[in-house]
Amino acid sequence: MEKNKITALLKRVRENKITVNEAFMKLRHLPYEDLGFAKVDHHRLMRTGFPEVVFCQGKTPEQILDIFKALCRKNKKVLLTRVDGSIFRKIKKINRRVIYNAQARTICLDEKKPVRKGLVSVVCAGTADIPAAEEAAVTAELFGSRVEKVYDVGVAGLHRLLDSFKKIASSRCIIVLAGMDGALPSVIGGLASCPVIAVPTSVGYGANFKGVAPLLTMLNSCAPGVSVVNIDNGFGAGYIASLINRSAECRI
Amino acid sequence: MEKNKITALLKRVRENKITVNEAFMKLRHLPYEDLGFAKVDHHRLMRTGFPEVVFCQGKTPEQILDIFKALCRKNKKVLLTRVDGSIFRKIKKINRRVIYNAQARTICLDEKKPVRKGLVSVVCAGTADIPAAEEAAVTAELFGSRVEKVYDVGVAGLHRLLDSFKKIASSRCIIVLAGMDGALPSVIGGLASCPVIAVPTSVGYGANFKGVAPLLTMLNSCAPGVSVVNIDNGFGAGYIASLINRSAECRI
Amino acid sequence: MEKNKITALLKRVRENKITVNEAFMKLRHLPYEDLGFAKVDHHRLMRTGFPEVVFCQGKTPEQILDIFKALCRKNKKVLLTRVDGSIFRKIKKINRRVIYNAQARTICLDEKKPVRKGLVSVVCAGTADIPAAEEAAVTAELFGSRVEKVYDVGVAGLHRLLDSFKKIASSRCIIVLAGMDGALPSVIGGLASCPVIAVPTSVGYGANFKGVAPLLTMLNSCAPGVSVVNIDNGFGAGYIASLINRSAECRI
Amino acid sequence: MEKNKITALLKRVRENKITVNEAFMKLRHLPYEDLGFAKVDHHRLMRTGFPEVVFCQGKTPEQILDIFKALCRKNKKVLLTRVDGSIFRKIKKINRRVIYNAQARTICLDEKKPVRKGLVSVVCAGTADIPAAEEAAVTAELFGSRVEKVYDVGVAGLHRLLDSFKKIASSRCIIVLAGMDGALPSVIGGLASCPVIAVPTSVGYGANFKGVAPLLTMLNSCAPGVSVVNIDNGFGAGYIASLINRSAECRI
Amino acid sequence: MEKNKITALLKRVRENKITVNEAFMKLRHLPYEDLGFAKVDHHRLMRTGFPEVVFCQGKTPEQILDIFKALCRKNKKVLLTRVDGSIFRKIKKINRRVIYNAQARTICLDEKKPVRKGLVSVVCAGTADIPAAEEAAVTAELFGSRVEKVYDVGVAGLHRLLDSFKKIASSRCIIVLAGMDGALPSVIGGLASCPVIAVPTSVGYGANFKGVAPLLTMLNSCAPGVSVVNIDNGFGAGYIASLINRSAECRI
Amino acid sequence: MEKNKITALLKRVRENKITVNEAFMKLRHLPYEDLGFAKVDHHRLMRTGFPEVVFCQGKTPEQILDIFKALCRKNKKVLLTRVDGSIFRKIKKINRRVIYNAQARTICLDEKKPVRKGLVSVVCAGTADIPAAEEAAVTAELFGSRVEKVYDVGVAGLHRLLDSFKKIASSRCIIVLAGMDGALPSVIGGLASCPVIAVPTSVGYGANFKGVAPLLTMLNSCAPGVSVVNIDNGFGAGYIASLINRSAECRI
Amino acid sequence: MEKNKITALLKRVRENKITVNEAFMKLRHLPYEDLGFAKVDHHRLMRTGFPEVVFCQGKTPEQILDIFKALCRKNKKVLLTRVDGSIFRKIKKINRRVIYNAQARTICLDEKKPVRKGLVSVVCAGTADIPAAEEAAVTAELFGSRVEKVYDVGVAGLHRLLDSFKKIASSRCIIVLAGMDGALPSVIGGLASCPVIAVPTSVGYGANFKGVAPLLTMLNSCAPGVSVVNIDNGFGAGYIASLINRSAECRI
Amino acid sequence: MEKNKITALLKRVRENKITVNEAFMKLRHLPYEDLGFAKVDHHRLMRTGFPEVVFCQGKTPEQILDIFKALCRKNKKVLLTRVDGSIFRKIKKINRRVIYNAQARTICLDEKKPVRKGLVSVVCAGTADIPAAEEAAVTAELFGSRVEKVYDVGVAGLHRLLDSFKKIASSRCIIVLAGMDGALPSVIGGLASCPVIAVPTSVGYGANFKGVAPLLTMLNSCAPGVSVVNIDNGFGAGYIASLINRSAECRI
Repeated sequence: MEKNKITALLKRVRENKITVNEAFMKLRHLPYEDLGFAKVDHHRLMRTGFPEVVFCQGKTPEQILDIFKALCRKNKKVLLTRVDGSIFRKIKKINRRVIYNAQARTICLDEKKPVRKGLVSVVCAGTADIPAAEEAAVTAELFGSRVEKVYDVGVAGLHRLLDSFKKIASSRCIIVLAGMDGALPSVIGGLASCPVIAVPTSVGYGANFKGVAPLLTMLNSCAPGVSVVNIDNGFGAGYIASLINRSAECRI
Repeated sequence: MEKNKITALLKRVRENKITVNEAFMKLRHLPYEDLGFAKVDHHRLMRTGFPEVVFCQGKTPEQILDIFKALCRKNKKVLLTRVDGSIFRKIKKINRRVIYNAQARTICLDEKKPVRKGLVSVVCAGTADIPAAEEAAVTAELFGSRVEKVYDVGVAGLHRLLDSFKKIASSRCIIVLAGMDGALPSVIGGLASCPVIAVPTSVGYGANFKGVAPLLTMLNSCAPGVSVVNIDNGFGAGYIASLINRSAECRI
Repeated sequence: MEKNKITALLKRVRENKITVNEAFMKLRHLPYEDLGFAKVDHHRLMRTGFPEVVFCQGKTPEQILDIFKALCRKNKKVLLTRVDGSIFRKIKKINRRVIYNAQARTICLDEKKPVRKGLVSVVCAGTADIPAAEEAAVTAELFGSRVEKVYDVGVAGLHRLLDSFKKIASSRCIIVLAGMDGALPSVIGGLASCPVIAVPTSVGYGANFKGVAPLLTMLNSCAPGVSVVNIDNGFGAGYIASLINRSAECRI
Repeated sequence: MEKNKITALLKRVRENKITVNEAFMKLRHLPYEDLGFAKVDHHRLMRTGFPEVVFCQGKTPEQILDIFKALCRKNKKVLLTRVDGSIFRKIKKINRRVIYNAQARTICLDEKKPVRKGLVSVVCAGTADIPAAEEAAVTAELFGSRVEKVYDVGVAGLHRLLDSFKKIASSRCIIVLAGMDGALPSVIGGLASCPVIAVPTSVGYGANFKGVAPLLTMLNSCAPGVSVVNIDNGFGAGYIASLINRSAECRI
Repeated sequence: MEKNKITALLKRVRENKITVNEAFMKLRHLPYEDLGFAKVDHHRLMRTGFPEVVFCQGKTPEQILDIFKALCRKNKKVLLTRVDGSIFRKIKKINRRVIYNAQARTICLDEKKPVRKGLVSVVCAGTADIPAAEEAAVTAELFGSRVEKVYDVGVAGLHRLLDSFKKIASSRCIIVLAGMDGALPSVIGGLASCPVIAVPTSVGYGANFKGVAPLLTMLNSCAPGVSVVNIDNGFGAGYIASLINRSAECRI
Repeated sequence: MEKNKITALLKRVRENKITVNEAFMKLRHLPYEDLGFAKVDHHRLMRTGFPEVVFCQGKTPEQILDIFKALCRKNKKVLLTRVDGSIFRKIKKINRRVIYNAQARTICLDEKKPVRKGLVSVVCAGTADIPAAEEAAVTAELFGSRVEKVYDVGVAGLHRLLDSFKKIASSRCIIVLAGMDGALPSVIGGLASCPVIAVPTSVGYGANFKGVAPLLTMLNSCAPGVSVVNIDNGFGAGYIASLINRSAECRI
Repeated sequence: MEKNKITALLKRVRENKITVNEAFMKLRHLPYEDLGFAKVDHHRLMRTGFPEVVFCQGKTPEQILDIFKALCRKNKKVLLTRVDGSIFRKIKKINRRVIYNAQARTICLDEKKPVRKGLVSVVCAGTADIPAAEEAAVTAELFGSRVEKVYDVGVAGLHRLLDSFKKIASSRCIIVLAGMDGALPSVIGGLASCPVIAVPTSVGYGANFKGVAPLLTMLNSCAPGVSVVNIDNGFGAGYIASLINRSAECRI
Repeated sequence: MEKNKITALLKRVRENKITVNEAFMKLRHLPYEDLGFAKVDHHRLMRTGFPEVVFCQGKTPEQILDIFKALCRKNKKVLLTRVDGSIFRKIKKINRRVIYNAQARTICLDEKKPVRKGLVSVVCAGTADIPAAEEAAVTAELFGSRVEKVYDVGVAGLHRLLDSFKKIASSRCIIVLAGMDGALPSVIGGLASCPVIAVPTSVGYGANFKGVAPLLTMLNSCAPGVSVVNIDNGFGAGYIASLINRSAECRI
């Protein structure tokens, strides 16, 4: 069925009924595979140039395995987020080349290693922010960015931060993760000349309210150039940073 | 005094005591002018390549005028945000070339018209979102971006949105503003292949809670590639979009 | 005792002391059975034409079994919601015809299969919304509606949604479930010409706040025709949709 | 331009290139008029069978007048909500047949009086809820429903409510408005056998939080059959009730 | 030491240095026993005429046992709240006359059975409210009130409530517990002529927010005569009701 | 019509068809007068023994005057709350015996001065709490309670509070009002042996959140015997205190 | 009366009935003057060594004048906070030596100029924080501290802050005020070796929520040594800082 | 590398290129050790005169052990907070002199017992506040303060509190911990003449919201002199109190 649609479309192109541009626009939006409980999208890569990603939290193991099977048949790059080791052991039986990052809780399939380009930096305030930071880093790398990591440079020890800043000063995008007071993106936003993607983490206690405090801090950043994603959303930050990084790349 | 610092620095460069790179790093952070109640930063342009911006809400008219005078002595581009017409009439007596945008509530001084490059699109869901949208557009233009505006294309009338999408499909960054349900960035995030900066607006009533509802919607966007700034923060969105747009520009 | 009340009422009807209408009004509200910890209502069916429903969360297994026994003595249709498999195994010993839906976490007794009429559609944004969606579907079917299901059509992939919309365009009511940004009801509300019942789900993370974000989104829907029920309340949505569906049916 | 699109479409119908059904689907979504700051939708009536509505809060008087002019050229029924008397005086100069309801803060243009059918009831708990109740009633009437109003029957005086209930017992939909504790929809939900649309109002003081308290009450209604719209959203309730009422009507 | 204080006080009375009234005032506030981690108050009975109560949540088993031992040496009535069965088994070894109520999660020592007087009614909306209702009932009985219980009479089934109301119409105080919409106290407040103590319970799901929804409902009761205690605070309600009940009793 | 109902009822009593008790129950709930926008309840006095009260906030001056006229035709005691001086001047023209309390913002009609009995105390923490305190005091007095006022005795000056406590120690109920930290009811609850009705006031700034902070404090009072009414709800507190006070009175 | 108490106390000292220490303890808590609506405390100075302070928000002009008159009869130092110019003009007629600070909105009477000692620094992030900063500075000076002010040194311009830090490095206490992201206290807390008192201000827009965002940031400061006062509470910060500063002073 | 920096610095001092003061400033901020996942700061002691502290919540056991090893090589005093017994057993194998406080959940290494000076008091309202109180006490002692503990003196039993107050009247700083209503700091703030550090605890139930209620109470304290730290943050309070206590000490 899907095939018919595409064939028909291409015929109309050949017959000059629609322009090539229009056909591309349509192709970008048409095809996907229906598993019943999920509609798997094989053309995302065509549309965004990026791998398919599965957010696994709230899905059953069976659903995750079925989706993965469908994806790895037609994609060379797949990212599963929010998975634990038990899922990994099952996925590995399907495709042995997957890689598990226990801190990031990600599984990556990356069958054609990219030449990683540009620079996305991942900076976090404390040791407890590392899981979200790793999720961001894994994502950015799989999506084709060179990544530099700077961890445990919270604003209470300004000298550590200033020391480390030099090596990330040429980033095209800086991802900054912080829990507790969430003050780090404001400080880095004041130092950097590239966009900052701020990720509040649910690290802290009491009036941190599982990340609400740093979320509000970051939305209110007194430094411009800071935009914010959801609490603990390392993947989202890595994805956006890759879009920005690629944007510079593409136009060389 | 400021001069002495800079002179000393340059001497050290000449004597090879520090490298040119180090000197530049230092220069980017040093100089500003102290008005007592405010420390005016003349080197922001050097640091970020961008004009100086004054957020006027909460400042007295006297303070705004003093800051503007200090800035326009040494800058060719100045942006005042959140100002009303009465301030404009006073500012105009200081420098006649300022331009007031009543919807955006901005005053711009732009003494060397830029060649506007790239493409930043500003999309809003409803007529009442236009003030924040205009603030974003004015900012992006002053900061050197070519801007395309698409207004009143909320998700309840999907055909209007899809119709308009073609003309912004090649944007390097899309700013999306919405109040009420704040659903527009999720839909555009699914269509676009560039980063989306989402701006919740305080438009709506009742359980909108002055923008909290669309803010949460946008932070939870089911489409990746969406990051969020503060409620009604058109300026912030315009600034970040310009950073992203310029990033692609610089590297040509 | 209950019997006496009803007998007395009917005598008064016979003696023309009250009209038939008045008697019906009274009958609709009188009888129930007192189990001590619960007052079981056998006349709900008479009152609403619908089966009795037991919301099991927060009740002990013993209470659930006692209530079920009391109900199945006098009703042909019973629905238990928020039950797990261990309750099911016990209920099954009381009445073998009950059916368990593990995703929906419901137990249905339906001793006279209805001719299902009209059309209620159940649409959900993601795979993780399926449990609440199934609860809605099970409810609507037990209450006599024909049900069409469309799952995993979130607004980030608009083409999937538009593809699927045709088969539900003739619905008398559409139930739309979404977590994360909760944007789907706004989009469907703009496409549909029947009422939309929106169900926020607690799917998502961080600033989703266990369903608060999509709840607010839906209350603020920019499309009219959308009303909202409690977070994850699939049953409530299925019930209302059936009322609406039946309303059209009755008057043929 | 718009015309061209439609012509082209119809040609394709004549030539059997698309079916009549498909053409109708397309027609329902295509045409609107672009005023720059707003995209006025003339085919809403075709799509939903309902008048065009303008939510005026947050729009300038000029914008409201321009939109109204555009609409009343091509529509026989127009509803403006959230308008005050000063707007009315200006609108009246454009079209003398408009009617202003000062409590509801609505302006109606209704050039072909409908035969009002079915029954939608509007019930409110206190005198201070009347503005939102009137907005609901005006809407439901303009959209073709017969309306019965029952005001000031809060649950603290149960005898008033029970007295009044008889005259609304045959409603196809009951709109229930309440501020303060918001308990009325739960009680009416237990009595009624049709859907209840609950409207929390911002009436009350202190811990009412401008309607949040009754909003939560209503979302948690212990009676099924209750769905909820935004705080003070009388229009939304009147619109949905009309959809439900019409649904029963259409199928006679 | 404590003894010295009291002796000294009495001497001063004997010597007419202070009046008997003054001495009583002082006696009411002086004595307690210091266990280090807790200061056990043996004179509460003298001060309020009521038994000593220990709120056990957040205390270690050892602390509970030590406090109980200290109390039961000098008091004939002791109430422990928020205890589980494992604590009960240990307490029982200290004093065999204690009684455990598993639903209420209370342990009572009541060595001189009171003549229970007056009437305090405990009314709850649903089966899941029973634990808090039982805590209230146990408390009111231990503090000397006759108690009538009416359970599962939520407002969605008004006929059950009106049926049951007669037997509690002569109460001196009515405790009303409800989760979900929390509407019951408003309805009973409109029927009753005595004070109503409303107890929100954490029963419900989604936008109930663990009792916040019914808490707000109750604070906003449209019926006067309703005051509110903390979520699930059955003990607090039973205590206040007993104060009110006793107040009428004492003055006969 | 109303009259017919009552006549019919009484006839049935005379004919022994219903008992006197039943007739009284019915009488307590039947009669009221319908003004269209409001249903005025003349039998509240019969039902509760208390005057009719009109909460004027959110009502138009015309509505208030109409309701007052209806009430003062048949009642000797009427209380209007939340009124300003301009309403008073109009009300005075209808009935010259009304009394205005500008701090409490109340209008009282009290044509048969009661013998005030018992003791209700009104205690407030600061000068800014006086308006709500006066509303409570006016209410309690009109409803037949003797009232003792103790103002400006916040917990930061414990000596003032302890000094004043003696004169209220014999209260049957103590109303305690506080803004800011709301700590006063906890302290008084520990000293008093009668029920405490706590009234949070919206006095304070910043994180007071218009009374939310003291509301939460009071709901969490570590002293038992404290129940809470809505923010600034002096009337509610005065009403409940009068119920409690009367309860002791009636049974002499 | 007050006098009698004190005389009696002193006699008991002379007669060795109580020790001097005990007498001092008692004296510290006894005397105040009762104005009816307020209880004026003349011995606060004795108790804390500090001037009397009147928080004027929420008090009527008459109340403020009466309290001021009572205070200035017996005190050499008085501080009124949250007053505007119109109050000042009236106060000035009572005592010509009062000084008004329009930014801080304070009135000071300081009839014996203190030798200001130690060092309290007042640091704020932006120009709009100055009103609260001035309130803190005025307070600290009146209470005997030498004050150093550093304004407009937000974290987005780290070089300004580091430049200024030297002159406050020897402070005994640093008051840090910030709105928006509230990040400044965390950074200063990491640099300073004395206690930091953080004051969130209601400066910012949107998701600042009138100071809630910086309040949460500060409570979650990743630098230890930071404690927090209420939003905009400059007075509170100045008071605590003076306690800390004096503490060091006293013990020389 | 670190060494080189310091050497270079000292050379510049010797050569009179920078003053001793400047060198000290720099030294205070430079050195730390990079473990990859954490940057361990050996010079904190030099900078603040205080031991290094590790907040262990959210760190893996391996990370805690590695950090501890790095610290105890170069420090004589180390504090680990939020640790459980299993960590303690592992830490003990590294250094046998560590001490575990199970209530406080702290591990202390203190190889040169300090002469404890001054007086910091730790006061808590209830038995369940003891864990946070012990954390505060352990911290203050390790940081060199003499500590007095007063537990279980909530405001509901004012006599216990007043009894205990004498022994802490000479404190240089009082730490006050309370859950539930959080009223204790306001009362102590009114009695004390030194700074009060208030610690809200997550003790309570229902509308306590895990410490939010006492947090708000404390921020709104009607007694000046009270500042607040995060919920359950005993460590933070102990740290600040030690800064204040030391401040008085240093200047003797």
